[in-house]
Amino acid sequence: MRVDGREQQQLRTIHIDTNYLKHPEGSVLISVGDTKVICTASVEDRVPPFMRGEGKGWITAEYSMLPRATEQRNIRESARGKISGRTMEIQRLIGRSLRAVVDLESIGEKTIWIDCDVIQADGGTRTASITGAFVAMTQAFAKLYEQKAIKKFPITDYLAATSVGILKDIGAVLDLNYAEDSKAEVDMNVVMTGNGEFVELQGTGEEATFSSDQLNELLAAAKGGLMQLFELQKSVLDEKIIELIEGNGKKEEAE
Amino acid sequence: MRVDGREQQQLRTIHIDTNYLKHPEGSVLISVGDTKVICTASVEDRVPPFMRGEGKGWITAEYSMLPRATEQRNIRESARGKISGRTMEIQRLIGRSLRAVVDLESIGEKTIWIDCDVIQADGGTRTASITGAFVAMTQAFAKLYEQKAIKKFPITDYLAATSVGILKDIGAVLDLNYAEDSKAEVDMNVVMTGNGEFVELQGTGEEATFSSDQLNELLAAAKGGLMQLFELQKSVLDEKIIELIEGNGKKEEAE
Amino acid sequence: MRVDGREQQQLRTIHIDTNYLKHPEGSVLISVGDTKVICTASVEDRVPPFMRGEGKGWITAEYSMLPRATEQRNIRESARGKISGRTMEIQRLIGRSLRAVVDLESIGEKTIWIDCDVIQADGGTRTASITGAFVAMTQAFAKLYEQKAIKKFPITDYLAATSVGILKDIGAVLDLNYAEDSKAEVDMNVVMTGNGEFVELQGTGEEATFSSDQLNELLAAAKGGLMQLFELQKSVLDEKIIELIEGNGKKEEAE
Amino acid sequence: MRVDGREQQQLRTIHIDTNYLKHPEGSVLISVGDTKVICTASVEDRVPPFMRGEGKGWITAEYSMLPRATEQRNIRESARGKISGRTMEIQRLIGRSLRAVVDLESIGEKTIWIDCDVIQADGGTRTASITGAFVAMTQAFAKLYEQKAIKKFPITDYLAATSVGILKDIGAVLDLNYAEDSKAEVDMNVVMTGNGEFVELQGTGEEATFSSDQLNELLAAAKGGLMQLFELQKSVLDEKIIELIEGNGKKEEAE
Amino acid sequence: MRVDGREQQQLRTIHIDTNYLKHPEGSVLISVGDTKVICTASVEDRVPPFMRGEGKGWITAEYSMLPRATEQRNIRESARGKISGRTMEIQRLIGRSLRAVVDLESIGEKTIWIDCDVIQADGGTRTASITGAFVAMTQAFAKLYEQKAIKKFPITDYLAATSVGILKDIGAVLDLNYAEDSKAEVDMNVVMTGNGEFVELQGTGEEATFSSDQLNELLAAAKGGLMQLFELQKSVLDEKIIELIEGNGKKEEAE
Amino acid sequence: MRVDGREQQQLRTIHIDTNYLKHPEGSVLISVGDTKVICTASVEDRVPPFMRGEGKGWITAEYSMLPRATEQRNIRESARGKISGRTMEIQRLIGRSLRAVVDLESIGEKTIWIDCDVIQADGGTRTASITGAFVAMTQAFAKLYEQKAIKKFPITDYLAATSVGILKDIGAVLDLNYAEDSKAEVDMNVVMTGNGEFVELQGTGEEATFSSDQLNELLAAAKGGLMQLFELQKSVLDEKIIELIEGNGKKEEAE
Repeated sequence: MRVDGREQQQLRTIHIDTNYLKHPEGSVLISVGDTKVICTASVEDRVPPFMRGEGKGWITAEYSMLPRATEQRNIRESARGKISGRTMEIQRLIGRSLRAVVDLESIGEKTIWIDCDVIQADGGTRTASITGAFVAMTQAFAKLYEQKAIKKFPITDYLAATSVGILKDIGAVLDLNYAEDSKAEVDMNVVMTGNGEFVELQGTGEEATFSSDQLNELLAAAKGGLMQLFELQKSVLDEKIIELIEGNGKKEEAE
Repeated sequence: MRVDGREQQQLRTIHIDTNYLKHPEGSVLISVGDTKVICTASVEDRVPPFMRGEGKGWITAEYSMLPRATEQRNIRESARGKISGRTMEIQRLIGRSLRAVVDLESIGEKTIWIDCDVIQADGGTRTASITGAFVAMTQAFAKLYEQKAIKKFPITDYLAATSVGILKDIGAVLDLNYAEDSKAEVDMNVVMTGNGEFVELQGTGEEATFSSDQLNELLAAAKGGLMQLFELQKSVLDEKIIELIEGNGKKEEAE
Repeated sequence: MRVDGREQQQLRTIHIDTNYLKHPEGSVLISVGDTKVICTASVEDRVPPFMRGEGKGWITAEYSMLPRATEQRNIRESARGKISGRTMEIQRLIGRSLRAVVDLESIGEKTIWIDCDVIQADGGTRTASITGAFVAMTQAFAKLYEQKAIKKFPITDYLAATSVGILKDIGAVLDLNYAEDSKAEVDMNVVMTGNGEFVELQGTGEEATFSSDQLNELLAAAKGGLMQLFELQKSVLDEKIIELIEGNGKKEEAE
Repeated sequence: MRVDGREQQQLRTIHIDTNYLKHPEGSVLISVGDTKVICTASVEDRVPPFMRGEGKGWITAEYSMLPRATEQRNIRESARGKISGRTMEIQRLIGRSLRAVVDLESIGEKTIWIDCDVIQADGGTRTASITGAFVAMTQAFAKLYEQKAIKKFPITDYLAATSVGILKDIGAVLDLNYAEDSKAEVDMNVVMTGNGEFVELQGTGEEATFSSDQLNELLAAAKGGLMQLFELQKSVLDEKIIELIEGNGKKEEAE
Repeated sequence: MRVDGREQQQLRTIHIDTNYLKHPEGSVLISVGDTKVICTASVEDRVPPFMRGEGKGWITAEYSMLPRATEQRNIRESARGKISGRTMEIQRLIGRSLRAVVDLESIGEKTIWIDCDVIQADGGTRTASITGAFVAMTQAFAKLYEQKAIKKFPITDYLAATSVGILKDIGAVLDLNYAEDSKAEVDMNVVMTGNGEFVELQGTGEEATFSSDQLNELLAAAKGGLMQLFELQKSVLDEKIIELIEGNGKKEEAE
Repeated sequence: MRVDGREQQQLRTIHIDTNYLKHPEGSVLISVGDTKVICTASVEDRVPPFMRGEGKGWITAEYSMLPRATEQRNIRESARGKISGRTMEIQRLIGRSLRAVVDLESIGEKTIWIDCDVIQADGGTRTASITGAFVAMTQAFAKLYEQKAIKKFPITDYLAATSVGILKDIGAVLDLNYAEDSKAEVDMNVVMTGNGEFVELQGTGEEATFSSDQLNELLAAAKGGLMQLFELQKSVLDEKIIELIEGNGKKEEAE
C-alpha cells in the first residue's frame, strides 16, 4: 500500500479551476493532490527574433515556484540572479510538449506565453503544469478564435502528462507524490496526446537502472492515468471547443 | 463619484484567508478588491551574517508579482537576472514596517522570511502585502510560542497599511485602485500601528506637489481606513493572540 | 545640545561650487558639513524607449558613493555586479523630485542625466544630492536655452531637500549628520519647492513610531531649513536664470 | 539510404584516444563521425556542501562547445554571462548517467569533475560525451585505485549512450548526424549499462508524436548500437580494469 | 641549464597543424612544447555597432582555457558568470596585435572572430595564441580572397609572439614554460612583425624591477626566437599566400 | 608644436593635494593637466583567501571613472553589471606596480585597498593614478608605522608612471593629453622606481608598429618626465618618510 493509501495505479484527486485570474487570456489553478499550480496563457502579437517573417506562431513556457511552495524555503531565482538547470529543463519541456498539439502555422506571428507558478509543491509539479497549461492555452485560443483574431482553431488534440515510478517494495506506481518521488528507484514523466501517442518520454534511473519489462509496466500505468486526465480536461472545456479539437484530430488522421 | 462607485473615504472589499498554504509557518491570501497577494512567513534558525552573535532576531521581506498579475505580461525578474528598483523599494518597506511592531530581542537569533507574491494586481499591492504579512507573521510567531521555541510573544501592536491620494476632480480618496492610482496627482502610502502612530509615511507628488492642508486631509483619510483594517485583522486572529498583543501594548505604554 | 554644537533647528555649513568640472553641461560640488557630493547634469538628445514619439523630455538620476566615502570601505557596486536596494531607492527619489519642477513638454525628446557621486559621506547624502543636482540641472538648461536648443526655460520653481529627525534626549532636529542619523528614532526626508509645497515626504520610524504631533514638529523644522537652502541656491544662480524661474512660477500660479 | 551512405542500424566510425592530455587524471578524445569531444576526469578531495559529512563521493559534469565547433559561430556562454538551458540539461544528464554505474559510497568524500568540451559538432554530442566520459572516469578511478587512494574499484558496469530517431522516408535510424537530427520527427537518447538495462531514456516528438510500436523499434536499434559501443570501450581499457568492472557486476547480480 | 634542458635562447619544439577543424574558415592546432591551443578564424558579414557605416572591417579575439588545461582544475568562466581580468587582457592583446598587420579598409564591413582555446597549458599560452591565430586568420583571408569576397589580400606582414624573462641564477631566457614563468623575476611578452618592428611590448617586474641593460638583453633574445617563428609560419603557408603577404610588405615600404 | 603649446619633452602642470578626504588612511587629489583623480588607500586587517596563513600582506587596486569624467557620458559599470576589460587591465596594472616597491612580508596579513576614481579625464588617467596612489599608499603606511601597527616602514623606493607616444608630424612626446593620445601611432606607459629601474613597460602600436630606435627615444623621454615626478612626490611627503624610504633603498642596494 502507498503512503497516502492509494492503489498502485490510482491518480491523486485532481481539480482544474478555470478562469482563475482576471487579466490573462487563459488561466487555471490545477491541484493534483497537494500540488497546486497557477497556469496562465498570455498572447503577444509578435514572435521571437529568430522566427520573424516566417508567418508562424510560437509557444514558450516559464516555470517557477513560490519560495515557500516547499517544505524548506528556497531562495528566489530572481534573488540568485540566475535560473537553475532544473527550472530550465522544466520550462523547455512544457513549451515543447504544448507545441506538439498546436498548428503553429495557423496562428500567424503570435507568441503564447505560458506561465506555470507553483503555489504549493508535493511532487509532480512539471506534469501538473503541462496538464493545466493545456487548458489555459486552450482558453486563450478560444478567446482569439471568438474575436476572429485567428481563422482556424489551432489545437489538434488533448495533451496531458503524469509521472510513474518504481518503488522498492511496491513496484510500478502512478502519479508519485513528493514522499514517493524522493524514494523512487526509477522516475518517468510521460507526456501523451489524446489519441495515445507519446510526445515526451523521460525515464531516469536514480542511481539505478531499469529493464525493458519494467519500462513496459511503467508505460501501461502512465497510459491508464493519462486517459483519466483527458476526461477531466474535457469536463472543464466548452462543448464547442471540444468539437473544434476533435474535428482537427479527425482531419489529421484523414491526411 | 469614483470609477468603481465607492465613496471618497471607502475601502474596497477586503478578505484575509488564513492558513492558505500547507508548508509555511504562517500564510494568508489577502484580497483588497481585485488585488490578491499570497503572504507567507517562514522561520529560519539563524540571522544574516551582519547580525550574528547579538542574540536578537531579524525580519526580512521579499516581494514579487506573477508575470501576468497585471494587464500586460511583465518579464520575470529571474529571467532578467536582476531585481528592479521598484521591487527593492517595496521589499525594504515591508520588512522595515513589520520590524516596528516586533520585539526582536525576544525571539533570539531567528530570521522570519516574509514572502509577498502578488497573484493579481489592481493597485495597492504594497499596502495589501503589509496588511496581509502582519497576519502571516503573527501566525508564525503563534506557532513558535505554542512550541515554546520563544518565551515571550514578540508582537507589540497591530500593523496595517493603506494608500491615499488626490484625484483631480474628486479630491482626497482612500485605497486607490489601479485606474485611480495611474491618474492621481499625489500618492501616499501610510503604515500605522494599532495605537494610531505612524511607522512609515511616503508621499509623492507625481510630477506635481501638495500643500500642508492637503497633507492633513490625506492623513485623516488614511487613519479612517487603517482603523477598519485593524478590526479586520483582529477578526481573523485567535482570541489568545489578541490578548498577547494587547498585553504587550499595555506594558509598552506603562514603561 | 547636538554632538557638533548646533542648535536643534540649525543647518550645517553649506557650500555649492558651480561649474566644478570641464565636460558636463552642468556640474557642482556641494558640501553640507562634511558630506560632499559631485552633481553633474548631462544632456542626451533622445529619450528612453518607453517615451519615444511623445515629444516630451525625461530626467533620470544615478547615485553612487566612492568606496571610501565612508568610515569603512564599501565594496563597489560594479564589483558586486549589482546595485543595492538603497542606491535604487535614492536614485529614483532624486529623479522623481527633479521632474516635479521641470516642464518636460517644453524640452522636447531630450534626457537629462543627473549623476550624484558622493566623495565624502557624513549623513544626508540623498538630500544634499537633490539640492546640488537642482543647481547642476539649472545650469544645463541655461546652456541649452542660451544655445536656443530649447525655446522655453523649463524650470518652474526652486527645489531643495533636507532631513529632519527625532533624537532621544533632544527632540526634533534639522539636517542630521551621520552620528545623529544612526541614533535617530525617526528619520524624515523632505523635498520641497520654493513656494513651500511638498514634492516628497518620506518618514520612517526606525524600529519605532511617531505621532501626529511629532510629525508636525518635524515638518516645521524642515520648512525652516529649506527656506535657507532656496536662498543659497539663488545666491549661486545668475540673475537672468532667477528671473526665468520666478517668471515661470508666476505664470503657473496665474493658471 | 542515409545522407552519408550508412545503413539504418549502422553507427558512424568511432575512435577513442585515451590519455589525450597531460594534466587530468583521465582524458580522452572521442570521435563519433565528425563529432569530436575532449572528455576529462578530475579528482577533487572534497564534495559539494550539501553532501559533506555523509562519507560518500560525487560525480558532476560540465559540458561546453568551442564557439566554432558548429557551422555558425556561437557566442561563448562566458561572454553571455550565463549558461543556456540546453547546456544545463546536457550536463545534468551526463552527471546523472555516470553516477548510475559508480558505487559512490566506496570512494569517500571525493568529487569527480567530468568536463566534456566539444571541439567539433556534427550531431550526437551529448551521447558521445557520455560514452567518452565513461572511459575518462574509468581511468581516473584506475589511477586512484593504483595509488590506493580508494580501496575498492567503484565502477559496477560499462556505460554508453547513443541516439536513435525517426526520419520521414527512412524510418528508425541509429546514431543521427547533424543533418539527420535537424530533420528527424522523433529523437531519442538512450543511456544503457553493459548488462542491457536503461539508465536514461529521453524521447521527444519534435512537433510530432510517436506510437508504442515506433518506440519499440527505436529501442531495439539503440540496443544494437550500444552493444558495439561497449565492445569499443573494452578495447581501450586495460585488461585489469575490465576484470575489476566485471567482477563488480557479478557481485551485484549475486546480491 | 634550464629545467627542461634547453639553452637560454632556445625555443621549445613547435608545431602548427593547419585546417584542424571542419567548420571554421581558418583553424590550427599550435603546440609550443606542452602548450596546445586551438586557434580558429570565423568570418561574419558585419561589424560591431560602433563601426557601422565606415566601410572597414574589424578583428576581435576571444581566449579561453579548458577547465583542466592546467595542473589544477579551474572553474569555467561561464559557470562563474564573468570573465576574469586576465582573460580580458589576453583577448584584447590578441585582437590588437592581429589588427596591426591587416589593412582593415580593404576587407569591407566584415568581422574576423579569432577564438583561441587552450587545450593544454604549460606557459606562454597568450604568445602561442597570437602565433597560431596569425596562421588561422591568414587561411580565412585566403579563402575569402579565393572566393573573391575581398579584392585585395589584406595581410601586410607576418606576426608572431614569444615570451622572454629573467631567471635568478640563469639570466635572460627565451620562451618560458610554466615552471620557469612562475619563478621569473621579470616577464616580457613581445609581439613583432616579420620586418622586425614591435607591435606590443609588455614587460613586468613581478614584485621586482629591471634595468635598461636587462631590457636590451631580453629584446635581443625575443628577436632571435621570433625570427624562427616567422620561418615556421612560412613553412605551413601556401607559396601563393607568402607572395601576397610579401608583395604587400614591399608596397608598404615603398610608400 | 603640440596642441597645448608644450615642448615635446614637457610634462603638463601637476599638483598633488594630500589628505584630500576625511575617512581614508591615505588620500590625494592628483591633477595632471585637466586629468583629475582621487586616490585613496584603505587598510583592511586581513588578506584575500588565497594568501591566508602566509604572514604577508597584499596591495590591490580598483579604478573607475565618474560617468561624466569624459566628453561623452559613459554608462556606469555598476549599471552594466560588469567591469570592462579596459578597467580590469588598469586596476591590475596599478596593483602590480605598487607591489613592486613594497616589502609585503613586513606588513603582516593586511590588505591595502587602493581606489583611483577619475573625476575628470583628459588622457593619462592610469599613469596619474599610479603616481597619485603611491602618495596615498605612503601616507597610509606612515599612519600604520606611527601607530606601531607595523614595525618596519615597508616602502623601498619611489614609484611613478607616465605615458610617452609617437605623433605623426612631431615624433616622440611626453605625457600625452587626450587629443594627442587619440592620434598617437604608438603609445607607451612606463612605470619606474626612483632609482631608474623599470617596473612595467607597456608599448602598443595602435594599428601601427615601432622600431628599436623609436623605442629608445620613447624610453629616454619617459625617464626625463619620471625624474620630475619623483621630485614632486618628495615635495609633498614628510621629511621623516623620505628618510625611511631612502634608508630602505640603501639597505636593498647593499644586499
